[in-house]
Amino acid sequence: MSKSELVVLGQDDAAVCCSPMVREPLGEEAAVDLARMFKALSDPVRLRLLSLIASYEGGEACVCDLTGPFDVSQPTISHHLKVLREAGLVGSERRGTWVYYWVLPAALAKLSSLLRTPSGTAAGDVR
Amino acid sequence: MSKSELVVLGQDDAAVCCSPMVREPLGEEAAVDLARMFKALSDPVRLRLLSLIASYEGGEACVCDLTGPFDVSQPTISHHLKVLREAGLVGSERRGTWVYYWVLPAALAKLSSLLRTPSGTAAGDVR
Repeated sequence: MSKSELVVLGQDDAAVCCSPMVREPLGEEAAVDLARMFKALSDPVRLRLLSLIASYEGGEACVCDLTGPFDVSQPTISHHLKVLREAGLVGSERRGTWVYYWVLPAALAKLSSLLRTPSGTAAGDVR
Repeated sequence: MSKSELVVLGQDDAAVCCSPMVREPLGEEAAVDLARMFKALSDPVRLRLLSLIASYEGGEACVCDLTGPFDVSQPTISHHLKVLREAGLVGSERRGTWVYYWVLPAALAKLSSLLRTPSGTAAGDVR
């Protein structure tokens, strides 16, 4: 197998995730799916909730730890968590009294890959 | 300078762009700014428009080339382009009859970096 074939295989692997939009235009179906995920990120409280879960020690957070940092009611937090879950950005599980949340890394990676640019990225991301 | 110091410097460079949310929770102000950008991406037509501009040969597209692929009116396309411009995702310039649009790579890179995960990314992104 030649070196150039190997490179193409590497690109195929990345495409499973999401081809950067600077490389090829998005199809209609993919755009609907991705827009739904971006919509879940379009609220500042949801974005902070997601980042709080994502950066939590051990990679998951109890809902009991997620209300404190916000000036909104617990039902509002629950609503935002539901939106994040329905968009496929977080997973959740009830254990006893509390529900625990964790980020689904493949979903974040999909969006990250889509937005990747050949220039303007942090060193190390440039291909 | 030790090797570990060099790694830290590399992380600082990335932070200019946007620290991955898996590394640290977002602050309130940053979340408002980023949510506005994600809101611009939360519509399938806008997402396709952005990807069409981003992948256009030469890196910029005439508005005259951007209406054809969509089942929406020209004023709707203009509205979507305005939202993308106001979110800081594209730049534009009138030249003669037509307005030309290009993607602002630093904006895409900022969002891409924010969503980057240590696992679940395409090979080559893992740090």
